[in-house]
Amino acid sequence: MSPTDRAFMAHALGLGRRTMGQTWPNPSVGCVIVREGRVVGRGWTAPGGRPHAEPQALAQAGEAARGATAYVTLEPCAHHGLTPPCTDALIAAGVARVVAPFPDSDPRVFGRGFAALRAAGVAVETGVMAEEAGRDHVGFLTRVRMGRPHVTLKLAASLDGRIATATGESQWITGTGARAYVHAARAQSDAVMVGAGTVRADDPSLTARGMGVSRQPVRVVVSRLIDLPLMGQLARTARDVPVWLCHGPDAPSETRRAWQGLGAKLLPCRLSGRQLDPGSVLDALGQAGLTRIFCEGGGALAATLMQADLVDEFMGFTAGVALGAEGRPSLGALGIDRLAEAHRFALIETRAVGGDILHRWVRAD
Amino acid sequence: MSPTDRAFMAHALGLGRRTMGQTWPNPSVGCVIVREGRVVGRGWTAPGGRPHAEPQALAQAGEAARGATAYVTLEPCAHHGLTPPCTDALIAAGVARVVAPFPDSDPRVFGRGFAALRAAGVAVETGVMAEEAGRDHVGFLTRVRMGRPHVTLKLAASLDGRIATATGESQWITGTGARAYVHAARAQSDAVMVGAGTVRADDPSLTARGMGVSRQPVRVVVSRLIDLPLMGQLARTARDVPVWLCHGPDAPSETRRAWQGLGAKLLPCRLSGRQLDPGSVLDALGQAGLTRIFCEGGGALAATLMQADLVDEFMGFTAGVALGAEGRPSLGALGIDRLAEAHRFALIETRAVGGDILHRWVRAD
Repeated sequence: MSPTDRAFMAHALGLGRRTMGQTWPNPSVGCVIVREGRVVGRGWTAPGGRPHAEPQALAQAGEAARGATAYVTLEPCAHHGLTPPCTDALIAAGVARVVAPFPDSDPRVFGRGFAALRAAGVAVETGVMAEEAGRDHVGFLTRVRMGRPHVTLKLAASLDGRIATATGESQWITGTGARAYVHAARAQSDAVMVGAGTVRADDPSLTARGMGVSRQPVRVVVSRLIDLPLMGQLARTARDVPVWLCHGPDAPSETRRAWQGLGAKLLPCRLSGRQLDPGSVLDALGQAGLTRIFCEGGGALAATLMQADLVDEFMGFTAGVALGAEGRPSLGALGIDRLAEAHRFALIETRAVGGDILHRWVRAD
Repeated sequence: MSPTDRAFMAHALGLGRRTMGQTWPNPSVGCVIVREGRVVGRGWTAPGGRPHAEPQALAQAGEAARGATAYVTLEPCAHHGLTPPCTDALIAAGVARVVAPFPDSDPRVFGRGFAALRAAGVAVETGVMAEEAGRDHVGFLTRVRMGRPHVTLKLAASLDGRIATATGESQWITGTGARAYVHAARAQSDAVMVGAGTVRADDPSLTARGMGVSRQPVRVVVSRLIDLPLMGQLARTARDVPVWLCHGPDAPSETRRAWQGLGAKLLPCRLSGRQLDPGSVLDALGQAGLTRIFCEGGGALAATLMQADLVDEFMGFTAGVALGAEGRPSLGALGIDRLAEAHRFALIETRAVGGDILHRWVRAD
């Protein structure tokens, strides 16, 4: 791979990121058509997942696509879905070479896109910026491989790991910089997820604000009995921004009907003991098409996900304030006796955000 | 001030740092003698606090000191203490100019050193690297101004602010990099301080290991009743490395005698309610000469210091592991109901140390 290939692929990845969080269940793919060292067409998956990146870039390139190289951030599709296959479009446009990070992991695509291109005489090169592309497509790949969305758990806490005072006051522990960062992270996620306790305590709107987004993330609440306020922010706005409720088999039917009447979508999940089974919750969300979930607690839901080893990434904000042991813990009980039993995370990044610190971790192998 | 002045002062500050933690109750001062742009003498406060930096630098310079500039990181002393005044030595050596960061805050010195130099015809310039020197001398200045040592509280915790599992296991939450950093911080402190609970739970040695130090920090234990193991690490080594016990008026006299017999120093302190008064503890330690304290918890002592607003700097290590709400909290109860009552800290630094993160904060104004 040449440095030029890397530069154009980096450009394509940047384009794909533009609609991250807005294309589920499809991946947000970027595509750049390059002819004689110049970009002649650019495309990215449209909000809603269609049209794909390739036909848009090809349309922009027009005749210039003939003999050009197409940089695509995921293997072009070869199957007839709701749109004609992108491989057909690339071949018809006369593209001479396709560069991609890695073979697609979607079983409908895997290797067949490249095979179709090669069969038509198009040169195919893979392995360019695979690591970066793997991070960008982690939601899509997790859903394809495991049937569930990728989960980022965000916790904003004091120096001593508390998310509220004993009386429940939590606004604001972190500063405006951290809060803006959280809104940006929501905007790039398919869905924001919280537990029922957080909804009852804070009555949050869970929207991405101040980010200029036209398509808000789905708002997921995990609540076995759907015992949530019917006059709160979520109830009032469920027709404008999706509200999905993951509930147990014993949620009262009148409550279900009330929320359906408000416009919420209901996802029945299995119980594990007295709680909703977190694996069943994520399976239901994956089945419904979500690929990237941004979970903002509270402590009980965070602990449930952590115990089930379902936290793929941890995003912590730590504020320079001490709240003391009577404050509310960021994570509920995990039932860990020995350090060796505890889940370990590997550090990706730490830096100052306003007066707080941001630290990001991924599940350690 | 010229860039040259800054460069030589930076060099002098570096020399002063060599004995940081080993010169109490004296400050660790650095001195550089410069003649015609070349360093002709260097000195720093010797371990134990004497001799001072200036006479050592002058002795190295010899006749070259005549007409030279002396860079000193604190105002030279003008009083007859256990050593003759450094101002006399600078004048006798024929130094033409003295550069210092700021006037000394020791009431025995304040401005009198500079006045004595000026009266003898020596040019004096202050204000060079005052901020850096203020950080280096923060222990000395805190003790001179407030009668107590400067306190850094260190807490090493999990992602959710826990310092041990429910069963008390705490070795090791953080990795070898963080632990080496802690040993370096101990080595630069006059004393390491912990609460009685930490001694009973961990039986720590509290020494600075692997740092090549010849003079270990004093080991301070805060324990109202001195109910500490008489067969533990501290008891066994109290004759080799100082152990100071801050205790209450009701500590049993046989226990006091036992620890005195083992070589420990006893510091009686006042009670505040049922606990030792943290202000009284720090006053006693300041009275005994300590200027920089590195407090390593546990949660109860940390909370007591935090409540009394006696934490000047907070040094946090966060490990990529989740222990859950049943783990032991890094800070005990603070009695805070409202966020507005909580003590705020301003971020100085955050960075990765091995697989953990280090974050440092100072009391916010």
